[in-house]
Amino acid sequence: MKKTRIGIVGYGNIGKGVEKAIEYAPDMELAAVFTRRDPSALAIASQAKVMSFEQVLDMKDQIDVMILCGGTTADLPEQGPYLAGHFNMVDSFDAHTKIPEYMSVIEAAAAKGKKTAVISAGWDPGLFSMMRSLGEAVLPDGNYYTFWGRGVSQGHTFAIRHIEGVKDAVQYSVPVDSALAEVRSGRRPQLSARQRLTRECYVVAHEGADKEKITQEIKIMPEYFADYDTTVTFITEQEFIADHTGMPHGGHLITSGSTGTNNHIIEFSLKLESNPEFTASVMVAYARAAFRLSSEGHYGAKTVLDIPLRYLSAKDRDELIKELL
Amino acid sequence: MKKTRIGIVGYGNIGKGVEKAIEYAPDMELAAVFTRRDPSALAIASQAKVMSFEQVLDMKDQIDVMILCGGTTADLPEQGPYLAGHFNMVDSFDAHTKIPEYMSVIEAAAAKGKKTAVISAGWDPGLFSMMRSLGEAVLPDGNYYTFWGRGVSQGHTFAIRHIEGVKDAVQYSVPVDSALAEVRSGRRPQLSARQRLTRECYVVAHEGADKEKITQEIKIMPEYFADYDTTVTFITEQEFIADHTGMPHGGHLITSGSTGTNNHIIEFSLKLESNPEFTASVMVAYARAAFRLSSEGHYGAKTVLDIPLRYLSAKDRDELIKELL
Repeated sequence: MKKTRIGIVGYGNIGKGVEKAIEYAPDMELAAVFTRRDPSALAIASQAKVMSFEQVLDMKDQIDVMILCGGTTADLPEQGPYLAGHFNMVDSFDAHTKIPEYMSVIEAAAAKGKKTAVISAGWDPGLFSMMRSLGEAVLPDGNYYTFWGRGVSQGHTFAIRHIEGVKDAVQYSVPVDSALAEVRSGRRPQLSARQRLTRECYVVAHEGADKEKITQEIKIMPEYFADYDTTVTFITEQEFIADHTGMPHGGHLITSGSTGTNNHIIEFSLKLESNPEFTASVMVAYARAAFRLSSEGHYGAKTVLDIPLRYLSAKDRDELIKELL
Repeated sequence: MKKTRIGIVGYGNIGKGVEKAIEYAPDMELAAVFTRRDPSALAIASQAKVMSFEQVLDMKDQIDVMILCGGTTADLPEQGPYLAGHFNMVDSFDAHTKIPEYMSVIEAAAAKGKKTAVISAGWDPGLFSMMRSLGEAVLPDGNYYTFWGRGVSQGHTFAIRHIEGVKDAVQYSVPVDSALAEVRSGRRPQLSARQRLTRECYVVAHEGADKEKITQEIKIMPEYFADYDTTVTFITEQEFIADHTGMPHGGHLITSGSTGTNNHIIEFSLKLESNPEFTASVMVAYARAAFRLSSEGHYGAKTVLDIPLRYLSAKDRDELIKELL
């Protein structure tokens, strides 16, 4: 069997995760990693080529699916529309409110280039979106609840690191146990941000920094922390390195609904030791789907809601139905 | 908007559940209930027609999707192939090992009649199958674990009721907490049936019956109970009526996998107050999908692995992407 040839754009945590995930995919191989850095200065884990992003179009005939591993704010709005016209692609565009606009630009480019682009394929948006949609379809008299965590929020972590006197920091989003229990009980509460989530901050301060001031600055920060119960714990650099350099994440997507007099709970939970590696694994599964859809002539922008699950599997349909249905 | 016209075949617990679920579907209406009993003797909850199963073909032009609510052993092997040639249909055929054979018969009938048949659309097979497939695609270095319960097993309940001296009974399948905890911890144990599940039996004995003998007969029953840790509790008829006449069920489908050095847990859980009503709700969502697939010319036998999630929703694609992605 000819293997599906994958290209990686951007060699950050997700790019590295994609490289790893491809090792577990019997039907795929990594053709090249594209970087905007100096390619000769970038060492990667595998034997694949490293090339400059400027050369990307030279590889049009040697890559079946491009996996875009850049960020939603800085990279994808530029790279997505550019690449969608030339390659089948997958990204994890995660600015929920901007998806329709982004999608229409990708749709136009992909349709014109006769390529297939799967956008927003991570776990939220991504697997959690699938569960919201499934829950609503099966239990139309219902509500869904999204609980993120326990996990590291990059945005909140960066916000703390910018405060004067902070040497290093990490922020964990943590679901409130009592809120989870209430939702699981079948009641359908209205929950504020504060009732749903607490924010735990672990901070390494510079020597002589004013810890009280740092704590206050964090707690009153609008949007990021002011609307939440936030705890700030100061730790040593050694503790930080030992306990807080992983990128765990996860969460719960719960649909609570009724069929008249009977209540039902559908819960989907993720507990991930590495958020970027798991996101990368989802993207690799959708790369398989993108290539198949493209081979069948289904071009344009697709989401996780548009794609049958069997397109994600390396197994053929009969095998899947026999073994897993 | 013209509503999708649904027919129900078989008015047992699932048929009644479908009737209820249609009330929550803004885009559907119940056209008729078909029964093999005397239609004039069957009172149903809604205003829909009640007709004899023998008249079913007379309704060919008045029903868009037929939902088959009969049993897998006695009803579906006959009704499925017969109806699939004349109607779009959905069933919840649940004999896992016989699905490929059943599917090929349905495929032939549906393809010939240019109809769409969604088979095995409940929660297992059904939603749990989707989670097995999703988990395997995203975490190929992984194992999945199916835990059924806590819930009533009809088969085991019937087996107890056949024992001499038993007036009434119910059997609950209950996952073993320590096994669940071990799987959730990220270890990937091999679990026997006994390690995974216990069986709780609640029995109302006839006056003067030998309770010790009933207990022994249950515990040694091959296939049903001998391979499990089984408890038998005798209760009064009043207790039975008060506490054990519901049909709750549920379970956990857990995928535990690794991306090299990091482990990840994907867990899908159901807690259902009424197994038949929830199964019916799943079938109604797939009836919507069946009608759409048929309208688009996608005929033949389909499974939950073949159908994009957006086909299950009453919302249109743009709305879904905007609201739920």
